[in-house]
Amino acid sequence: MELVQEHPVWKLGRLNHVAIAVPDLEKSRNFYKNVMGAESVSEAVPQPEHGVYTVFVSLGNTKIELLGEYGDNSPIKNFLEKNKTGGIHHVCIEVDNVSSAVQDLTKRGIRSLDPKPKIGAHGKPVVFLHPKDCGGVLLELEQA
Amino acid sequence: MELVQEHPVWKLGRLNHVAIAVPDLEKSRNFYKNVMGAESVSEAVPQPEHGVYTVFVSLGNTKIELLGEYGDNSPIKNFLEKNKTGGIHHVCIEVDNVSSAVQDLTKRGIRSLDPKPKIGAHGKPVVFLHPKDCGGVLLELEQA
Repeated sequence: MELVQEHPVWKLGRLNHVAIAVPDLEKSRNFYKNVMGAESVSEAVPQPEHGVYTVFVSLGNTKIELLGEYGDNSPIKNFLEKNKTGGIHHVCIEVDNVSSAVQDLTKRGIRSLDPKPKIGAHGKPVVFLHPKDCGGVLLELEQA
Repeated sequence: MELVQEHPVWKLGRLNHVAIAVPDLEKSRNFYKNVMGAESVSEAVPQPEHGVYTVFVSLGNTKIELLGEYGDNSPIKNFLEKNKTGGIHHVCIEVDNVSSAVQDLTKRGIRSLDPKPKIGAHGKPVVFLHPKDCGGVLLELEQA
């Protein structure tokens, strides 16, 4: 009899968004809206509690989230100093239960940047996993 | 009368994949399959003509493409030298007509890395746009 190891207490879902940090949000907004012709591009929304402006670019099956700096302590400040023209900042994947995911992943040696989920820019609980434990990628998990 | 500027000759589509270059493909494959519990993770497929191994991680609405180095002249060699633990390498968006897209984007000042589309790892015409013209992001366009 073969033992099939079921993934235990939480379930990985859809790719919610790819986040791109940019030095000039209006220029990048224009790029996706008018040059690339994306079907829907939001206005820039200030997110004071997250230190960023966000613009959502809808691609049908998922979205690109453009991030611009907001305020003096923006979490993307260092990233933009290292990546002057901008770059892909993180990938966000949905999970059915973000608390269970964090608990389980911690046991498996995958660190979170915060001990507990916080409320993210979409008003849902999110957590960021440590890039060193995820193949160099900043992974955000968001409650579906 | 308001003039609405229609996007002309080609149409942007779905996010086809997010490509992540990693130093240890089997380790990353294991991470997405057994730690994150992704619903479907392919075997590593050698792509000699592209200088990479690919692993596809299905996320329901789109996929992550893990890239490992293949051979001595892999196009991800420099990237992995700069990003020792790996990182997000490019984003691939589908278009209805990749030749029209390249022609139109060139007129708008967006450079391609190759003058004409090539056949990509999925057997479809693709082109990579210059990161400096796309907010620091290496954008791949793939014929849908």
